[in-house]
Amino acid sequence: MAGNTFGKIFKITTFGESHGTGIGVVIDGCPAGIELNLAYIQHQLNRRKPGQSKIVTQRKEADEFEILSGVFEGKTTGTPLTLFIANTNHKSKDYDHIKDKLRPSHADFTYRQKYVNRDYRGGGRASARETAARVAAGAIAQQILEQKGIVITAYVSQVGPLEIQQPKEELDFSLIEATPVRCPDISRAKEMEAYIKQIKKEGDTTGGVVSCVIQGCPVGLGEPIFDRLHAELGKAMLSINACKGFQYGSGFDGVCMRGSEHNDIFINDNGTIKTTSNYSGGIQGGISNGMDIYFRTAFKPVATIMRPQPSVDVNGNSVTVTGKGRHDPCVVPRAVPIVESMAALVLIDYYLLARTDHF
Amino acid sequence: MAGNTFGKIFKITTFGESHGTGIGVVIDGCPAGIELNLAYIQHQLNRRKPGQSKIVTQRKEADEFEILSGVFEGKTTGTPLTLFIANTNHKSKDYDHIKDKLRPSHADFTYRQKYVNRDYRGGGRASARETAARVAAGAIAQQILEQKGIVITAYVSQVGPLEIQQPKEELDFSLIEATPVRCPDISRAKEMEAYIKQIKKEGDTTGGVVSCVIQGCPVGLGEPIFDRLHAELGKAMLSINACKGFQYGSGFDGVCMRGSEHNDIFINDNGTIKTTSNYSGGIQGGISNGMDIYFRTAFKPVATIMRPQPSVDVNGNSVTVTGKGRHDPCVVPRAVPIVESMAALVLIDYYLLARTDHF
Amino acid sequence: MAGNTFGKIFKITTFGESHGTGIGVVIDGCPAGIELNLAYIQHQLNRRKPGQSKIVTQRKEADEFEILSGVFEGKTTGTPLTLFIANTNHKSKDYDHIKDKLRPSHADFTYRQKYVNRDYRGGGRASARETAARVAAGAIAQQILEQKGIVITAYVSQVGPLEIQQPKEELDFSLIEATPVRCPDISRAKEMEAYIKQIKKEGDTTGGVVSCVIQGCPVGLGEPIFDRLHAELGKAMLSINACKGFQYGSGFDGVCMRGSEHNDIFINDNGTIKTTSNYSGGIQGGISNGMDIYFRTAFKPVATIMRPQPSVDVNGNSVTVTGKGRHDPCVVPRAVPIVESMAALVLIDYYLLARTDHF
Amino acid sequence: MAGNTFGKIFKITTFGESHGTGIGVVIDGCPAGIELNLAYIQHQLNRRKPGQSKIVTQRKEADEFEILSGVFEGKTTGTPLTLFIANTNHKSKDYDHIKDKLRPSHADFTYRQKYVNRDYRGGGRASARETAARVAAGAIAQQILEQKGIVITAYVSQVGPLEIQQPKEELDFSLIEATPVRCPDISRAKEMEAYIKQIKKEGDTTGGVVSCVIQGCPVGLGEPIFDRLHAELGKAMLSINACKGFQYGSGFDGVCMRGSEHNDIFINDNGTIKTTSNYSGGIQGGISNGMDIYFRTAFKPVATIMRPQPSVDVNGNSVTVTGKGRHDPCVVPRAVPIVESMAALVLIDYYLLARTDHF
Repeated sequence: MAGNTFGKIFKITTFGESHGTGIGVVIDGCPAGIELNLAYIQHQLNRRKPGQSKIVTQRKEADEFEILSGVFEGKTTGTPLTLFIANTNHKSKDYDHIKDKLRPSHADFTYRQKYVNRDYRGGGRASARETAARVAAGAIAQQILEQKGIVITAYVSQVGPLEIQQPKEELDFSLIEATPVRCPDISRAKEMEAYIKQIKKEGDTTGGVVSCVIQGCPVGLGEPIFDRLHAELGKAMLSINACKGFQYGSGFDGVCMRGSEHNDIFINDNGTIKTTSNYSGGIQGGISNGMDIYFRTAFKPVATIMRPQPSVDVNGNSVTVTGKGRHDPCVVPRAVPIVESMAALVLIDYYLLARTDHF
Repeated sequence: MAGNTFGKIFKITTFGESHGTGIGVVIDGCPAGIELNLAYIQHQLNRRKPGQSKIVTQRKEADEFEILSGVFEGKTTGTPLTLFIANTNHKSKDYDHIKDKLRPSHADFTYRQKYVNRDYRGGGRASARETAARVAAGAIAQQILEQKGIVITAYVSQVGPLEIQQPKEELDFSLIEATPVRCPDISRAKEMEAYIKQIKKEGDTTGGVVSCVIQGCPVGLGEPIFDRLHAELGKAMLSINACKGFQYGSGFDGVCMRGSEHNDIFINDNGTIKTTSNYSGGIQGGISNGMDIYFRTAFKPVATIMRPQPSVDVNGNSVTVTGKGRHDPCVVPRAVPIVESMAALVLIDYYLLARTDHF
Repeated sequence: MAGNTFGKIFKITTFGESHGTGIGVVIDGCPAGIELNLAYIQHQLNRRKPGQSKIVTQRKEADEFEILSGVFEGKTTGTPLTLFIANTNHKSKDYDHIKDKLRPSHADFTYRQKYVNRDYRGGGRASARETAARVAAGAIAQQILEQKGIVITAYVSQVGPLEIQQPKEELDFSLIEATPVRCPDISRAKEMEAYIKQIKKEGDTTGGVVSCVIQGCPVGLGEPIFDRLHAELGKAMLSINACKGFQYGSGFDGVCMRGSEHNDIFINDNGTIKTTSNYSGGIQGGISNGMDIYFRTAFKPVATIMRPQPSVDVNGNSVTVTGKGRHDPCVVPRAVPIVESMAALVLIDYYLLARTDHF
Repeated sequence: MAGNTFGKIFKITTFGESHGTGIGVVIDGCPAGIELNLAYIQHQLNRRKPGQSKIVTQRKEADEFEILSGVFEGKTTGTPLTLFIANTNHKSKDYDHIKDKLRPSHADFTYRQKYVNRDYRGGGRASARETAARVAAGAIAQQILEQKGIVITAYVSQVGPLEIQQPKEELDFSLIEATPVRCPDISRAKEMEAYIKQIKKEGDTTGGVVSCVIQGCPVGLGEPIFDRLHAELGKAMLSINACKGFQYGSGFDGVCMRGSEHNDIFINDNGTIKTTSNYSGGIQGGISNGMDIYFRTAFKPVATIMRPQPSVDVNGNSVTVTGKGRHDPCVVPRAVPIVESMAALVLIDYYLLARTDHF
């Protein structure tokens, strides 16, 4: 398996398992001379970490990171920047009972078949705990991008059947953190929260949607033909645990529209060429056009439920699987900083790549 | 722009523009000793080519390919395999009038900003004509995969508001070619065809959805964490012109489901471990699980419409753009072989990569 | 075999065989807006092409290139730039007699074992004819680099036992083309030429050394740790047919020196930091230091000799191999533009990469 | 700087600096199910580590590694395998006096110019300490390769002007560790040792040559055109600190030979095709031919000498630099396991790649 690296210029390689010594990330290609805002990194990790509210898993992890390399006198040196987060609260015992059992809709079966020697504790490498490493790296990318005015904001726009009701143009992003759900439509957020609590009480789980807006992106990012900006964003999002779909701009809704409705009309806005609508989602021909980039990502219901389910073990014998341990009833509130991080990793990579467009 | 290569082991690099000498593809990493079925390559090219029916663009291109390298005595040699398709029917004159105009929802503006020196004729490199090169390469991947029993089938499942009505389990794939729409639900296909004709008559265009099923995929393909099988499939699809979204398995519908409904239960089916449902879409933890792989891709309405639209030129002056030339009212019938091809390119790549899982 | 691509940003992929339709190259990542000097490309191809003088192979190839994509109105568009050189004078009949014979010190045996289906005509893909594609691409890189004052000059510094006698600091590069040997030490060049003619008359071949100097390289090119500038130059040179060794700066001679002799002392030369000697060969820690980059490459004697040699065929039966066709008695005069081209491809790639050092 | 990854399938990424928390390596793509021989990893690290004998630097580092990820129940899991070696004996104070001084023939100047923010302590990232991470990874590659009978052996063949005297065919590799010099020609080794001690006493340093033989390599490894086996080996060696040259087979000596002498004649040795001589160095056309692979690497004299040298500081002011701290008078004895490790990393990568030659 050599799929643990992401990016072309600003490249990250993550490592570690849910119940090993910890998880980490090597960033190769981070520009030199960047003064790191360590508090922001921790802030983003805290938004992802378990135990932060009643509606997420109660595993307690400090998720404090240490820097193993690449920083000198507070600034990046252009050499590999390594961050490590020790595992402190793993309860591997919780997993002994499922050592040989194949949990439904988990990666147990496929990892077992592919690698044979599988770390079953807490999902091993397949655990979403790995995403903490991405968030640490993404937080660095975000703070660099913000120097150029590129701001990435994700939020929960759907939990189970409950969709956000305010139009996205009217949302107040300062309210995202106002509720543990991370939906800026507060009244809807409260309903979502109640829904998640109810689902949890029933020992069940639900899915959700995370939306993301990128503001301030300059024109010209994206590398056609295969490495279109939205194609890389799509891959980035689909690489997040439990993500089942990606759409940008009009997405699947655009299918029903006519060209005459869907086309974004160009205008000259005081010397800047803009479009009057933005069904293109800020990307045309795979290249950013200067408008807001907008996309949505679907997350399936968490596979671990607190109810007995029939299954088989690795030998094909019938068994019953019942969730133990501490798990999320709905993954989207914690997915918000992960989506932001993966978007930031794509954006910074393409920002640097675009410097080579001309000689 | 160095984004014209796709794949890790079985790597394709495409080149060429809509109105240049032609378009082509170099396949590097094609296994040696493969006897090429040239007729199948042409068959797939014919399914993509313009002018094949009343509901697609009337540009006439033979789309006949020639092999420039990599084949000896009818078989691949393991060296770069190059296919070239000459452009014969380009009418560059059709584009003189829009030389400096920015067509709404086309790549004119972004290419102009990014590269400055832009071949405006027929969309240049941004034209969907480039996908013929992918289909040629994909047809080779498909014929190799079929030797291992892996069969990839795409079809149209929605045109504008008209969704396919038969459940996907009941579809008869032998009917896909029975109508020019390439929807195997024949009665619905006829409605779709009528809808496209009506839209065309109105000088307008519509979007659609292409669905794809991969049968016979072995367990174990996919390279977590970032190069999950569905993440690469997603990127591959999103790299196709006009594609706005990708979802696999339950996709966006899965968001509303509960874990207890959505989990696919493992059973022992005469020694083979299978699942009773397939909301996972044949992929768990980013790795194929042996069930059918299933995904859907959204295509927006074609941007070129036969009606006047306001826009600006490259200098920001107000202009009117009216579509000339020969264009598709709906892209999905021709997108079917493109979706199959990109899926085949991903599958063959991951098939070869999986050989390195163990020593 | 997926090793036909070179470079990270300015990436070339070559294709084609000695006796196929032709050979070509796709350049992906060539900056947009470059006005191509087609005459210079042809000039470099002419320096490499067969039949140019009495001391090289008499195969007659025009080696005229055509541009298949990536240029619009004389300038690059940032999209894949493809050049193709048709084969016109291949005499495949010359190779029928060795179809199954393994020519000593050729790639016949290894290609046969690795790929089984081998194009034996003229060495197929293993032929040095492939290097014409590199020269075409390299000539483009060279003309771009020269805009920034980076000048790459290669010359023959040894033929068989005859080493160049003038110190490299005293060489007059304008004399390189004064003799067919391409050694700027004219009196030595004449001896080399006579030596090659003598060797040829005896039906034998000889080796040689090509030296290369890169002037005007800015400080800061090179990507430690693994992608040091000299490591990539070394790989580039060693990828040329018949190249057996690479050394830069003091190279193997430096082994015998002491640190106190070998260290290059830094001085302040009117505000520019330079070194008084240059045993480092212009590269320190894998990064260019602004001094001339200097390296040497060893080429073995050509394997095809006009004398009978014992060998075996693919089945292990004893056979006799006698060179037919038209071959070089010594490869280094024609290797000069190839060395320059590969150096230019490395330099332009690292020049573009260095743009991402800081944000 | 994104050049800290090496390999295509078995990929390593190293991180860390001389005087930071430590150095480490992530191996992505290590096959699953490999039982690690931890003692062998430590054995190779011990051969590289400082303080092991009188003729190397007296810095005392335990160079004990810990495994941070990728191993479960003693075997690899196919997920990223991370090893970390803490720095324990760094004396950063030794470097305060040269904080702004440019040490001759070090990377101080180039890193300063390229990255500006430079960790000057002990050379920072440019320190050869980084090679410990390579040795840890290489030791794993070596133990895997040995399962297939591929054995890699490096030894010192020259120190300053003292070349090994026994022909390489007569060397007894079991004697390599018999002396601290790691030259299996014992009487010559003793002279080399005395020479190094003398040089050290004079406060000076010397260069040397490390030779390497790879036995048991199967036919067919190597990826023409650019990724020829010897080109990748050359790059691997040239990426080692202080390496100035690489030659394989006949190398630079082959330049003076005639084709009739140099050609390796094929014979049928009881059903196996071999060559009677091996000037090709086990590689033809960039692909291994089953004979021993043989190459030599040149190392320059260590730049840090215990004598005052004139130089400038970062502002161009004249200064005097005098080596302090603990340094090697000659690097080649400690380079032996590094050369083996880099060779092993190339071989395992190409071994795995060759599995994709046929479908």
